[in-house]
Amino acid sequence: MNDLTQTPEMLIAMMGAKARRAAAEMALASSAQKGEALVAAARALRDATAKIILANRIDMERGAANGLSSAMLDRLRLDEKRVAAVADAVEQVASLEDPVGKLIDETVRPNGLKLSRVRVPLGVIGIIYESRPNVTADAAALGLGSGNAVILRGGSEAVESNRAIHAAMVKGITEAGLPADAVQFVPTTDRAVVGAMLRAVGLIDIIVPRGGKSLVARVQEEARVPVLAHLDGICHTYVHAAADPQMARDIVVNAKMRRTGICGAMETLLIDRAFPEREALVTALLDARCEVRGDEAVRKLDPRVEPAEDGDWDTEYLDSILSARVVDGLDEALAHIASHGSHHTDAIVTNDESVAEQFLARCDSAIVMWNASTQFADGGEFGLGAEIGISTGRMHARGPVALEGLTTYKWVVRGSGQTRV
Amino acid sequence: MNDLTQTPEMLIAMMGAKARRAAAEMALASSAQKGEALVAAARALRDATAKIILANRIDMERGAANGLSSAMLDRLRLDEKRVAAVADAVEQVASLEDPVGKLIDETVRPNGLKLSRVRVPLGVIGIIYESRPNVTADAAALGLGSGNAVILRGGSEAVESNRAIHAAMVKGITEAGLPADAVQFVPTTDRAVVGAMLRAVGLIDIIVPRGGKSLVARVQEEARVPVLAHLDGICHTYVHAAADPQMARDIVVNAKMRRTGICGAMETLLIDRAFPEREALVTALLDARCEVRGDEAVRKLDPRVEPAEDGDWDTEYLDSILSARVVDGLDEALAHIASHGSHHTDAIVTNDESVAEQFLARCDSAIVMWNASTQFADGGEFGLGAEIGISTGRMHARGPVALEGLTTYKWVVRGSGQTRV
Repeated sequence: MNDLTQTPEMLIAMMGAKARRAAAEMALASSAQKGEALVAAARALRDATAKIILANRIDMERGAANGLSSAMLDRLRLDEKRVAAVADAVEQVASLEDPVGKLIDETVRPNGLKLSRVRVPLGVIGIIYESRPNVTADAAALGLGSGNAVILRGGSEAVESNRAIHAAMVKGITEAGLPADAVQFVPTTDRAVVGAMLRAVGLIDIIVPRGGKSLVARVQEEARVPVLAHLDGICHTYVHAAADPQMARDIVVNAKMRRTGICGAMETLLIDRAFPEREALVTALLDARCEVRGDEAVRKLDPRVEPAEDGDWDTEYLDSILSARVVDGLDEALAHIASHGSHHTDAIVTNDESVAEQFLARCDSAIVMWNASTQFADGGEFGLGAEIGISTGRMHARGPVALEGLTTYKWVVRGSGQTRV
Repeated sequence: MNDLTQTPEMLIAMMGAKARRAAAEMALASSAQKGEALVAAARALRDATAKIILANRIDMERGAANGLSSAMLDRLRLDEKRVAAVADAVEQVASLEDPVGKLIDETVRPNGLKLSRVRVPLGVIGIIYESRPNVTADAAALGLGSGNAVILRGGSEAVESNRAIHAAMVKGITEAGLPADAVQFVPTTDRAVVGAMLRAVGLIDIIVPRGGKSLVARVQEEARVPVLAHLDGICHTYVHAAADPQMARDIVVNAKMRRTGICGAMETLLIDRAFPEREALVTALLDARCEVRGDEAVRKLDPRVEPAEDGDWDTEYLDSILSARVVDGLDEALAHIASHGSHHTDAIVTNDESVAEQFLARCDSAIVMWNASTQFADGGEFGLGAEIGISTGRMHARGPVALEGLTTYKWVVRGSGQTRV
């Protein structure tokens, strides 16, 4: 790794080969051993708090000198409380159920062959992420907890913080007798390494991008390795004619305003023309300091509503802005979501169970909700303990992806000398 | 479709849009309706037997004129018996369990949210295949049975046969009240259409190539849409020291010689140096008219053994040829498989259960077997009824892929007005 003449491809080939060997060991590690490693890693992180904060200070100073925005600097910043939270999150993964070795199903064939499908780790996971240094620990912990090897490629702004966190994770892993190469950190900030990772078919089994839209878009565009991600979270809430007005207001204001910057935040409100309290709904949002961009029918409800333009229906604001339109019934609501949604999370508010069940069946999104805020679209809220990301793809894993999503299965066949006729 | 100025991209965009609409309808079809459609399609195939054979005759004559090999002509040929078998296979899919709507798991969160994961169809499946016209019916039936829409792109050699089979399938589907566009056949043999399908992200959800290695390699190389396939089936059998000699001979001869042209056929035999009846094992293969290419140790067992060259260990012969080497124990056998295998199917023969379980855990293949012939690697033999293909990838579905592998899941969240804190 000290050879500066090394190409990005050579670097990734070398790291990938090490990761593959480590993955083979990790696949055989017991749940207890993986748990031990996670607890040891959390301890090592706590022990290294001062070192990590010192490393982070270098990143912060360089970031400030390079003119990073205050929002970016805040994302980058680590203090004692944040390091403690990072360590707690790692330790928490140890308490999750280990998916590896789980029997999916089994059957005995008429010829006596015993077949079973057993969960096994995916193999080698590549994580490409931006400024938040906690991803180094989070992603490593989830990879470790599911018996995989991970290759971490963090943003250049956080390189010192990431290195310090990585060193602590590795200390914990090796203390528990697991291979150091199970968690590797790309030692260079050369951007060409990202391209090499994206093309590393056979070396890396899956790529998880964590960061802004431009990162995810580049990864989805260039990757030859399968990608687990979502590009957009254009989430809808459809307030049906038979919605409880108070519930509708509470859900809609929460779905939009609780945290506007998360992918599960509602971006478009669809109001049924037959819903009697349309006006109060829009007023509640405006009163909560949400900018509402509406179609003509919505604009009639409150003079503060701005006119929506065509692009608004396809925009993920991640801000206190909402697009809103009036629709004529369930079919029009579903058609709007099918045209403009991003297959992330969409919700209906109604007291009519049969309409709700139709919505849940017909809305083709990773997460469909009835009478709940789209802000619940989160691995933690779903009881998965943590998530590596939310997938809007249809293959492999959909919605919040946690430990199970980082596994695959193998077919195990036990015979007694059977030959095929 | 009659507009000859249409580009391949426009054609696939149009077919994809129709398929998407049909897929939305198919996703809501009941099991009974899908079953009815399959039974009706089988009936329509039987009723159209004469037409199909006539169409096939045109393909056969053109094929003969174009100098197709007798093996290829045989693959292409349809007679009454073969059409009946095609219809039976379609009907059989109706008897399989419908995976759509199946509950994977459910949980109630402390805040009262009810979460469930429910199986839903993948969406639109693109099938790219070569000369066997039965794939038209098989793939359509599996797509239909799992609630998907399919776009079929068959080889030019079989175009008339495929058209006739497709017409019968559509007749059955519409008789059952399902949309004709659920099974579409690409109406041109322009090869550029394959490229357009491979790049149709968002229009086609998954591509399944069915055919020879060069087709699969092209698809895997060019596709931007996820691909479900295997390139090679370099399957190993490791005969351990504690193998029953007679069982080892029976399994090994069957794994290699029962049908040499299938992907589950054994291509490499690994014989433990401590297995006493090494010689009889190799002799049995040679006596079964198998060419054996061995390392030095194997060559000493029988003078008829040819010397293996380096490339032999990475060759899928699909013929009565076998590479064979002597290994020193389980670790060396596993290391050989890790270096040269294709993650398809690998087997151990032994009476030592603890060694067998180590092999099953450590061998990183889609299918791992103990005391059975690798020729069992097949959806039908696994009780899946039929298979769309065998996947050696790690994502989504692994090994034989049948109805369940053509589905994904959605998260369904039922609340009573919950908002997130």
